Amino acid sequence: MFAPVYFDYNATTPLDSRVLEAMLPYLTQQYGNASSRHEYGRAARRAIDEARQRVAHAVGAHPTEVVFTSGGSEANNLFIKGAAALLPKGTVAISAIEHPCVREPARQLVRTGWRLREIAVDAECRVTSADFFAALAEKPAGGATLVSVMLANNETGAIQNVVQMAAQLAAQTKSTSALFHTDAVQAFGRVPVDFRALNVAGVHAMTVSAHKIGGPKGAGALVLDKRLELQPFIAGGGHEHGLRSGTENVAAIVGFGLAAELAVAHQQTQATTLRALRAELEAGLSTLGAHVFAAQTDRLPNTSYFALADVDGETLVGRLDRAGFAVAAGAACSSANPAPSHVLLAMGIQPALARGAVRVSLGAGTTQQQIHDFLSVLKTTLGQLKALVAEA
Amino acid sequence: MFAPVYFDYNATTPLDSRVLEAMLPYLTQQYGNASSRHEYGRAARRAIDEARQRVAHAVGAHPTEVVFTSGGSEANNLFIKGAAALLPKGTVAISAIEHPCVREPARQLVRTGWRLREIAVDAECRVTSADFFAALAEKPAGGATLVSVMLANNETGAIQNVVQMAAQLAAQTKSTSALFHTDAVQAFGRVPVDFRALNVAGVHAMTVSAHKIGGPKGAGALVLDKRLELQPFIAGGGHEHGLRSGTENVAAIVGFGLAAELAVAHQQTQATTLRALRAELEAGLSTLGAHVFAAQTDRLPNTSYFALADVDGETLVGRLDRAGFAVAAGAACSSANPAPSHVLLAMGIQPALARGAVRVSLGAGTTQQQIHDFLSVLKTTLGQLKALVAEA
Repeated sequence: MFAPVYFDYNATTPLDSRVLEAMLPYLTQQYGNASSRHEYGRAARRAIDEARQRVAHAVGAHPTEVVFTSGGSEANNLFIKGAAALLPKGTVAISAIEHPCVREPARQLVRTGWRLREIAVDAECRVTSADFFAALAEKPAGGATLVSVMLANNETGAIQNVVQMAAQLAAQTKSTSALFHTDAVQAFGRVPVDFRALNVAGVHAMTVSAHKIGGPKGAGALVLDKRLELQPFIAGGGHEHGLRSGTENVAAIVGFGLAAELAVAHQQTQATTLRALRAELEAGLSTLGAHVFAAQTDRLPNTSYFALADVDGETLVGRLDRAGFAVAAGAACSSANPAPSHVLLAMGIQPALARGAVRVSLGAGTTQQQIHDFLSVLKTTLGQLKALVAEA
Repeated sequence: MFAPVYFDYNATTPLDSRVLEAMLPYLTQQYGNASSRHEYGRAARRAIDEARQRVAHAVGAHPTEVVFTSGGSEANNLFIKGAAALLPKGTVAISAIEHPCVREPARQLVRTGWRLREIAVDAECRVTSADFFAALAEKPAGGATLVSVMLANNETGAIQNVVQMAAQLAAQTKSTSALFHTDAVQAFGRVPVDFRALNVAGVHAMTVSAHKIGGPKGAGALVLDKRLELQPFIAGGGHEHGLRSGTENVAAIVGFGLAAELAVAHQQTQATTLRALRAELEAGLSTLGAHVFAAQTDRLPNTSYFALADVDGETLVGRLDRAGFAVAAGAACSSANPAPSHVLLAMGIQPALARGAVRVSLGAGTTQQQIHDFLSVLKTTLGQLKALVAEA
């Protein structure tokens, strides 16, 4: 099989072979429904319990705080819609750079009488404190405040000061109807993520996903302060403490458990390695004249998001694909959308430059040789594109 | 490994080894995110497209009518909540024997201003025409009518005349705000299921699931009349025609595609085999004095639901489990609930007898020897239980 170099770890990651091995028994002999009261069912239940402990330990939570879902999108929807359903209608405040699976459920709340407030970011993709405070101050009397700000952005990798924001919300509202949620899908496994510390600061819930950390697609979790009441999102048989019904995807949950454990065990070493590789990448990009977005702020160690003046991002990604490098243009999760990235526009980047955006996201399989080869191919490709423009 | 005889196919089925083989490439080299615009992403997209065609062909639908979800519970929630969100508040009418993942979302609608009407069943677990008509006639002016009646019941296996009910709804309301949904999770693969025929009769949407037909946990689908508009349930990046966001579980979807194809290919032969095995089982049960529920109606060929006077179902299931037979007491999907089955109560079965209910559901791996062994073990077990009672 032709195997291009994979530089798109923020879109999804290869399944770690150890994780697949741990999953296989649950795809063969151990096929029970975890709700069944016989040996097959109990074996499935034990496996889920163990995975829940692993995920909880990895994110710094108690196992009872972990609600397994089919993935990050479902967990974000569960929190936003599940919390809103039990609160007096008020304001849902989200950063302008949230993933669509936070933005869209927040927009759906508007139909039911909530007000949507987007919080501005600066040119380095950081939520601005001033606008965050302003958003909180606008809170209409009596209504609830639901806040969702991601721990790290999927496109730029910019890390947000979620602790500070959550503490500010807690201090300002002193109310049980002000809730803070953070989407940690990109942060988890790439930087230290500790739900207990976040929770103490005032974060009520956090979303994580398996397939971004070497785990399988089809598993994620909402990590949730137990004092919080949510309306079940997928309602039914009452699985997952009544918050998420549906036959548990045992194999995927087992895989998530091990992937979470491995991700945390290797997080520091991995971060050091990837930061060094990215530095080499960005040194090379700089000599080619690239503009690297959010380069002046604290970023995920594996993410480099850049643009070259007068080069279309989609075109460049297509060329690199044919040359054997899998990278992303704009946000990979909504690539059906040809508009410039809403993240870059929120940062005040000109649409012309934003259309040139290319994201390289590194991971466990990345080597120095791949970085060198990529820079060499990129240089050649840019030369070809310039020649085409000159001919035209 | 100790491998008890598995008689709980309605709870979940073993993953067909051919299905696992088809999934494995997507758990190893082909790990792309189907939204990514590079070779890894395109390979994932192609696999999903092919699986969609397979599922569509298997259920008698067009590929554009298939919306993949994480399973049956999500598909049922998607339809009920997604349809209700865009309709004038009215009546949600469901049969009294629906699975909790239909009942609970229907109950949640009550909070938002809908009226819930449960439609009665007779002693054989058939939705009664009279009460179905009565429910439709009660429709308050101006409001929408959302109907959900399952194709076959998960506990008794009783098959409902969904075509007749849907046609009645269509004839009586002649309105775009009267929608009919059927949960075909248990019927699909066990009896012929043809969405086109159902759709012509007036069924707008149908739920199917992979893990009940030899496919993996973590994949299901809502099969949906394309003229219908639903509010997205898991909202986000706009996957699945905008109706179900979240990174697709490629391997599970691929597995679902093949499982659906195989289930339909073998449905008739399988049904004949299982019907014969069940007849042997029920002849034996009869000599032991068991009462078989819904025995006088058209049932799924694999399902036998019975009780023995003065024998507690949970106790019997526990004994059989230790003796090497995995069967279910009441509904397997909500076994945390010790109350007698709501299905049996709706049929007018006395609680004392309902508490004795045991479900044996057969499948591809079932043999005549297993049936004989089971009857022999059951006889011994009943003798032991009677001796215990006599001693006490």
